[in-house]
Amino acid sequence: MSMIREQMLAAEKVTALQWRDNALYLLDQRLLPQHEQWQRYTTATEVALAIREMRVRGAPAIGVAAAFAVVLAAQQLTHRPHSEWQAVLEADFVELAESRPTAVNLFWALQKMRDCLANAVQQSQPLAVLEAQALAIFNADRAANLHTAELGLQLIREASSAPQHLMTHCNAGALATAGFGTALGVIRAAYLDGLVECVHINETRPWLQGSRLTAWELVGEGIPSMLNVDSSAAHLMAKNKISWVIVGADRITANGDVANKIGTYQLAVLAHYHKVKVMVVAPSSTIDMQLSSGDEIPIEERDGAEILYLDGQRVAAQVDAFNPVFDVTPAALIDVIVTERGVVQQPNSQKMRELMLHR
Amino acid sequence: MSMIREQMLAAEKVTALQWRDNALYLLDQRLLPQHEQWQRYTTATEVALAIREMRVRGAPAIGVAAAFAVVLAAQQLTHRPHSEWQAVLEADFVELAESRPTAVNLFWALQKMRDCLANAVQQSQPLAVLEAQALAIFNADRAANLHTAELGLQLIREASSAPQHLMTHCNAGALATAGFGTALGVIRAAYLDGLVECVHINETRPWLQGSRLTAWELVGEGIPSMLNVDSSAAHLMAKNKISWVIVGADRITANGDVANKIGTYQLAVLAHYHKVKVMVVAPSSTIDMQLSSGDEIPIEERDGAEILYLDGQRVAAQVDAFNPVFDVTPAALIDVIVTERGVVQQPNSQKMRELMLHR
Repeated sequence: MSMIREQMLAAEKVTALQWRDNALYLLDQRLLPQHEQWQRYTTATEVALAIREMRVRGAPAIGVAAAFAVVLAAQQLTHRPHSEWQAVLEADFVELAESRPTAVNLFWALQKMRDCLANAVQQSQPLAVLEAQALAIFNADRAANLHTAELGLQLIREASSAPQHLMTHCNAGALATAGFGTALGVIRAAYLDGLVECVHINETRPWLQGSRLTAWELVGEGIPSMLNVDSSAAHLMAKNKISWVIVGADRITANGDVANKIGTYQLAVLAHYHKVKVMVVAPSSTIDMQLSSGDEIPIEERDGAEILYLDGQRVAAQVDAFNPVFDVTPAALIDVIVTERGVVQQPNSQKMRELMLHR
Repeated sequence: MSMIREQMLAAEKVTALQWRDNALYLLDQRLLPQHEQWQRYTTATEVALAIREMRVRGAPAIGVAAAFAVVLAAQQLTHRPHSEWQAVLEADFVELAESRPTAVNLFWALQKMRDCLANAVQQSQPLAVLEAQALAIFNADRAANLHTAELGLQLIREASSAPQHLMTHCNAGALATAGFGTALGVIRAAYLDGLVECVHINETRPWLQGSRLTAWELVGEGIPSMLNVDSSAAHLMAKNKISWVIVGADRITANGDVANKIGTYQLAVLAHYHKVKVMVVAPSSTIDMQLSSGDEIPIEERDGAEILYLDGQRVAAQVDAFNPVFDVTPAALIDVIVTERGVVQQPNSQKMRELMLHR
């Protein structure tokens, strides 16, 4: 095992979800960083609601949560003949799939579970087969993140071996995945390798994933960090402080376009203008080869109340709010996409196809 | 009087400051839109604190408030020989000048009052002379805004006579001035002239001038408006919805660089990328010909607590915050600066000099 991988495992402090005693435990991310409250889930419906309400969020994490939710649903069926499971579980698959529209990892994980189910019902212990598949998805995400962290670190080091200023948006950390994080995995590795002078964290309105979650993860591990409002990103770049913008992704299309938290597109335009490099870090489960470009990605619009109210108190005047929670960054504005399958520099359709055919 | 000017006067609903009964009344902008609370000020020290605490804010408004504060200070001196006034008031001038560093209108107004004082003490009723000067500053700002509104409207109409989508940042409205607003003055005029499909308001973290103040002003007058997080500006531009970004200014240097609310620079870069035009609207009291470029403008950094806390409640993790409240947009990214002295297209040093020499 590589040194960085060992160090990341040793430094691991934050997890967002746990599977034990036939139940899924989720850390309620709405309450962080003030309260670290774990909730126990025993039905798929509860998990679908948790995804919808963003108690669990982050593209890889909601995929993993949905996989375990299918196991929870199957646990209710042990008294029924295996031949009925597929028909009965269909409603659970639909309910989970409808919980959020943009991140493709959710649909990817559900498809994995659906395929597994078709096989499992032929066997004597279908529940054990489903549980093993969900755990495999969980473990594969952790392994992918450890590997992408090393690949991302290598890119940073190749560009400069000096300690540097990195910027991240939203939370693509341990909380958004099965562990370590995608963008924050790379940042953790860079820190452990002595390459981080400061991580500039965009607070990420309206949900404040940056100030509530990313800052909590990074500061908790002693990584030098500074919070800023989303509007000061260009000001920081103009002072020539930032070498890389490093973000996660909710869906990457066949041409390399990236859907991610609202504001990512704007950061990529600003980075382009200021000659700051943009790195997108995601497991290959985030790649949707069915969509030819980002224009086809359904962009979730959430309730304007998320902008108009703070902590249940109205802050805005009587006005309507437009609250798209993702945007699409065209491949042309991305320097590199890092996945556990490998690195795609200056992504385009051909390179994405090669990445996905490989292995 | 022009039709638009008459309509703007007739539609006027919002004022931020009033001078009556020898006192200055300020609408506490920290409490809007939930509470419309006017406070009465009778000393310069109180006004300096109100400026520092942003009970009154907006470059022109703090200039006007400071002018009246000098009158308040002078009111304490009626028992003293006129020959002592200049020496005694010096401390008030200094205290007011130190209240906030970036907006130059404050220093401009104080200089006007200082010059007036030198003359006033030679006369029999110096207090009346000072009061008249402060009122003149107040009235000139209102007149300037009415005129710039017409000039800005003309630019919008020349570019397109169709109803359009405009974007504004922070609050450069009636609340930020002696009346009507700078950027919002233009937007009001455009609305009255049938050119507004929708005003897209950036919420403007951390102080939320957009959601709290600008939305309150515009919706209160029935102007179609939509609030969005600062991070969605580029997403809105990419959907090709925005024709103009229209903002105010806190200081404009001799070469046409503009200091304004943090996020303005970023909007200008994004506008440039998306071929959206950028209009800066400000009275000529915002122009500082003493500074050759924006690099020389002192940028106020406020307490990180403004980012870390919401309504007194800590929301962010244990992290430090960087809170510069202004940034500088280079002249090259600005399509036009509109002042009551005239319009400067593609601003540069020569054009700014011509504007300021004119008259």
